[in-house]
Amino acid sequence: MRAAVIHGARDVRFEEVPDPRVLFPTDAVVRVVAACVCGSDLWRYRGIEDVPRPVQMGHEFIGVVEEVGDEVSTLTAGDFVIAPFYVCDSTCENCRYGYSTSCLNGGWWNAEHERGASADGGQGEKVRVPLADGTLVVVPGGTPSDELLPHLLTLSDVMCTGHHAAVSGGVREGSTVAVVGDGAVGLCAVLASKRLGASRIVAMSRHEARQALARELGATDVVPERGDEGVARLKEMFDGVGPDVVLECVGTKESMDQALRSARPGGQVGFVGVPAGGPELPVRTMFSTNVGVRGGVAPVRNYLDELLPEVLDGRLRPGVVFDLTLPLDQVAEAYAAMDERRATKVLLRP
Amino acid sequence: MRAAVIHGARDVRFEEVPDPRVLFPTDAVVRVVAACVCGSDLWRYRGIEDVPRPVQMGHEFIGVVEEVGDEVSTLTAGDFVIAPFYVCDSTCENCRYGYSTSCLNGGWWNAEHERGASADGGQGEKVRVPLADGTLVVVPGGTPSDELLPHLLTLSDVMCTGHHAAVSGGVREGSTVAVVGDGAVGLCAVLASKRLGASRIVAMSRHEARQALARELGATDVVPERGDEGVARLKEMFDGVGPDVVLECVGTKESMDQALRSARPGGQVGFVGVPAGGPELPVRTMFSTNVGVRGGVAPVRNYLDELLPEVLDGRLRPGVVFDLTLPLDQVAEAYAAMDERRATKVLLRP
Repeated sequence: MRAAVIHGARDVRFEEVPDPRVLFPTDAVVRVVAACVCGSDLWRYRGIEDVPRPVQMGHEFIGVVEEVGDEVSTLTAGDFVIAPFYVCDSTCENCRYGYSTSCLNGGWWNAEHERGASADGGQGEKVRVPLADGTLVVVPGGTPSDELLPHLLTLSDVMCTGHHAAVSGGVREGSTVAVVGDGAVGLCAVLASKRLGASRIVAMSRHEARQALARELGATDVVPERGDEGVARLKEMFDGVGPDVVLECVGTKESMDQALRSARPGGQVGFVGVPAGGPELPVRTMFSTNVGVRGGVAPVRNYLDELLPEVLDGRLRPGVVFDLTLPLDQVAEAYAAMDERRATKVLLRP
Repeated sequence: MRAAVIHGARDVRFEEVPDPRVLFPTDAVVRVVAACVCGSDLWRYRGIEDVPRPVQMGHEFIGVVEEVGDEVSTLTAGDFVIAPFYVCDSTCENCRYGYSTSCLNGGWWNAEHERGASADGGQGEKVRVPLADGTLVVVPGGTPSDELLPHLLTLSDVMCTGHHAAVSGGVREGSTVAVVGDGAVGLCAVLASKRLGASRIVAMSRHEARQALARELGATDVVPERGDEGVARLKEMFDGVGPDVVLECVGTKESMDQALRSARPGGQVGFVGVPAGGPELPVRTMFSTNVGVRGGVAPVRNYLDELLPEVLDGRLRPGVVFDLTLPLDQVAEAYAAMDERRATKVLLRP
């Protein structure tokens, strides 16, 4: 089969790789129906993260089960499934506590744990899925319509990650919220905040198309200012003290700093931006303001039961974050478009 | 009148100072009935914090109102009151949100804001209390019995601070909790966790008398190990993953690090230890484990309505954390006893 393989910075090729097959009795093989490129894929693409040897890319996909191992009990060939961006058994202590990203037996795609994860990636024609019973979620009702695919695909990462930001920030009925970051995750965090009942949602964005999309998804206000000016604008908008919750969906030192300084005393920062370069948090400031910080890598698998029905019945339509669709064999162009910010999020169809 | 005045490291004197009087119409003057020494008072005593000029000490006291300004409407002479360890108006946006430590008009004792705070301190015969309506809480039923005084006095800081740790850590019915720090605040955090329904509470302590007190207050287990060994013991005790909540009641880099590494993935650190030297929090670790951090300076005033009735009816008896009582004129010995760890917490009576 063919799959996206990164060979080095700015060198993504769609090329022949070995067909995935069931290696362990807990594996399944899934034929990919739609996949996408993640902001974090760009780290290797941009050379920020090393590529010591060619590796298959991708970790967000939906597809159809082709084959299952002998110990797989909840899946059969033909099932339409959503894969979270990691592998988990859904039975260990951490999975049951709601944090399957810390599964004691799971791991990441593209990694090389034995049973835990796979050398495959989602940006290919097929994927070997380890711990398939725990990892995959079956979409009830058979193969969904094409119209539904983008919405379903967001459940493998960005929608659930935006939701995780909102949950970690403690968004509830009546909360006032500011979202730092207008990428696909930030936009999904706007939608998630609205879904959880936030009374006012400020999208921090200076990008016209994304501002419009944020409003469509539930933002009541847009603030283009950043840094000190952004903090000051938010304070001014919310009784001189700031919003209850700030959702940090970028991952830079600057965005976290802005989030921490924007939240009201006793407020909360929900963060899901992968910390680039690892800025540390100023504990003395947090001590004096009582602003809490909570978040991290989103336990997507644990949120699927809650969010999937709303996507299926059309209440939740996060797929609007995709602004470009390409055939999978043009995956290199998908990376380039996202790298050059010509696209927010690219959907790939084999 | 006489009051404790610090002149420099290890130089606390009980000496004549000007009598406090009503300076602003929102002031009250309170005659101190009991006061105490705070762990944070030791910073100046130990020379960790500078003492550029002599300053009156203390910020935890209970007493009787002697005089009120013209604009004070909720207090009259003779009222028995509890003072939180700071001054607040109880009406501003932050006070109403539950975070009176961030009062827009308040401040600290021993500071020199005009109306917001006072040059007085609690370790004296009397105190000028700014913003008296907002700051002071009247104990209903007139002057309480001597037996009740230690318990009431803890509400000015340590009991409410321990409660704040537990609330910030999200302790609830059935939570598993570890408490780092066996000082007065740590011991109160044990009691607060029990009160909030924690099913298992581990006191981290290697001090025999404090271990016993922790058990009396609700600890189900005691772990004397620290650092890596302490983390390993906690993991082992809780399904190999750690407790739901860790309460950080010390404030050193080591204690925060231990707390962060002890909590289970998706767990929470509630912190109230004043960060000494400002260790920063490792955001990448927090990202990968989803361990949240929340806490800070405790909004004592906001907790008094909830905790005072339970102290008055005898359900809550945090006053056991006092292990030494001295006359106020021996305040220098109180500092020495706490500095040399001969006492956990000293109660002072004028």
